[in-house]
Amino acid sequence: MKAARFYDRRDIRIEDIPEPVVQPGTVGIEVAWCGICGTDLHEFMEGPIFIPPCGHPHPISKESAPVTMGHEFSGVVYAVGQGVNDIEVGQHVVVEPYIVADDVPTGPNDKYHLSKNMNFIGLGGRGGGLSEKIAVQRRWVHPISKAIPLDQAALIEPLAVGHHAYARSGAKAADTALVGGAGPIGLLLSAILKAKGLNVIVTELSTARKDKARASGVADHILDPTQVDVVAEVMKITGGKGADVAFECTSVNKVLDTLVAAIAPGGVLVIVSIWSHPASVDVFNVVMKELDVRGTIAYCNDHQETIKLVESGKIDLAPFITQRIELDDLIAQGFDRLIHNNESAVKIVVRPRLK
Amino acid sequence: MKAARFYDRRDIRIEDIPEPVVQPGTVGIEVAWCGICGTDLHEFMEGPIFIPPCGHPHPISKESAPVTMGHEFSGVVYAVGQGVNDIEVGQHVVVEPYIVADDVPTGPNDKYHLSKNMNFIGLGGRGGGLSEKIAVQRRWVHPISKAIPLDQAALIEPLAVGHHAYARSGAKAADTALVGGAGPIGLLLSAILKAKGLNVIVTELSTARKDKARASGVADHILDPTQVDVVAEVMKITGGKGADVAFECTSVNKVLDTLVAAIAPGGVLVIVSIWSHPASVDVFNVVMKELDVRGTIAYCNDHQETIKLVESGKIDLAPFITQRIELDDLIAQGFDRLIHNNESAVKIVVRPRLK
Repeated sequence: MKAARFYDRRDIRIEDIPEPVVQPGTVGIEVAWCGICGTDLHEFMEGPIFIPPCGHPHPISKESAPVTMGHEFSGVVYAVGQGVNDIEVGQHVVVEPYIVADDVPTGPNDKYHLSKNMNFIGLGGRGGGLSEKIAVQRRWVHPISKAIPLDQAALIEPLAVGHHAYARSGAKAADTALVGGAGPIGLLLSAILKAKGLNVIVTELSTARKDKARASGVADHILDPTQVDVVAEVMKITGGKGADVAFECTSVNKVLDTLVAAIAPGGVLVIVSIWSHPASVDVFNVVMKELDVRGTIAYCNDHQETIKLVESGKIDLAPFITQRIELDDLIAQGFDRLIHNNESAVKIVVRPRLK
Repeated sequence: MKAARFYDRRDIRIEDIPEPVVQPGTVGIEVAWCGICGTDLHEFMEGPIFIPPCGHPHPISKESAPVTMGHEFSGVVYAVGQGVNDIEVGQHVVVEPYIVADDVPTGPNDKYHLSKNMNFIGLGGRGGGLSEKIAVQRRWVHPISKAIPLDQAALIEPLAVGHHAYARSGAKAADTALVGGAGPIGLLLSAILKAKGLNVIVTELSTARKDKARASGVADHILDPTQVDVVAEVMKITGGKGADVAFECTSVNKVLDTLVAAIAPGGVLVIVSIWSHPASVDVFNVVMKELDVRGTIAYCNDHQETIKLVESGKIDLAPFITQRIELDDLIAQGFDRLIHNNESAVKIVVRPRLK
């Protein structure tokens, strides 16, 4: 079968590899669509980061580059391994793409996403969504309604990232949220916040991204820091109080500073983006306003609720798919496009197999 | 009566001023002892900071420099104003020294300490503990048992700062806490943590402060970053897990970095110190470990529980008083000593009136 395999920085190859074996306890999935994530792009440009380099096997998966890429995917079950009795061939599914040690508890109250050496399917080994088929442990397979188009279902993984950031914030309906940055995660997070009844303010300077935030209906207010004083506008919108919660989705220090200044006393700032450098933080205000600055990574028991929000129609993922491509065009139309024309693309989804 | 009044930076004068009028709703207190706080020192060296400069009245107190200093004090009630029926002359008391607007709710669930223009008695006006007498609104007067020596009672205010930091952390008995810095607040916070059943690790490089941490019995482990690898030692002590909570009490960036590195995934870092410059924060680890970085300022409904901890004998404040002086010696034996020989002093308490 065809698969996109990461060998090294700037070296991803579309190759023919053997089909996965559907072992006991696993589910065989024919991949329908797989999104390209910012993390994939970072691996391509600056990696390997999460990917275990050639000759340095990951402690859990025991694999190293070359590995199959892709962790945002949907598909249809084509086989179930021995012992899997609660899922059937033909079921539409998405995958919560975790690689965690066998002895890590993964129940509803367990923080398995923070477990030692945690990695992701499609980065750390165990196949990936940028291939025709994959076999995944039953625990990480989530059934979805056939009413969700499978291309949109590929966006449930990054949407779950937004859901987890929302959950980390402790925000309630009618709270005002300030979202710094309307890239893919900023937009999907805003969709979650809107669905949860928050008043959503997005700050963004790119015209294409402002347009997308407007067209998708996820923001009540869109503020451009090159045109308005964002802090003053947030104060106006909130009657002088400031935002209840804020979400940093840019890894740009100026955005972080704006969020700290615009949050109400006692508010919560969630850092969603992965920074490659230390941030300068106005801790005087963190102290004087008793802010909570909370990191958030990926998801943990967020998929069920995320899937419900999509199944119920509270979130429409259609506006966030900006391109559909074939696996053979992954570099030219996928990665290269995201590198050179990043702002107009939200989510590019890839079809590994021609129907 | 005698009072220490702040005129300007490096200009604090011991003067004779009129006694306060015990208005309706207030309590007249003869001050027994008043501690010198790091904040007082900052006002003296670099101020005015909290103190409203001469000619710029505070929006709530309507006062500006010169103002009477001192906010860490104990005393004996000598008069009660009209309408005060639940406190008697002769009662020993401490003061929660808030200045908040009249319309700010101050109930058990109200965050009055984060209210607009909040300031402190002894900085923002309304008299201070570095004078013979003071009249304080009943709300801010807390009765204490006569079994607590009044010099020790003057330390209840900074101890309440420690209690609030502990409360902000959400720490539980048997958790491991890492306290960065054994200055007065680091030590008093450690006393709270120890009383609450935590395993307390203190990191400190000053010999005098290490000695005090050891002698006062508030630390289970004392680590000197010039002698050991603090992160490695914390991992050893916690069986590889890391500290559950950490408290930054130094405003030194290297200490902050050590705490971020030594906290367990999902842990909480409370910033207690007031930074005069932005901090560099390793947000990559804040995100990957899903840390909560929480600011804490002063106290809010912490005095009752703090007083109980002292009354019950769970916390002994005696070891933290390193000097007792008279008001006339405030600059020479108080401020100057803290400036030139800061490390051996924990808390200097001042007696405004000769008995």
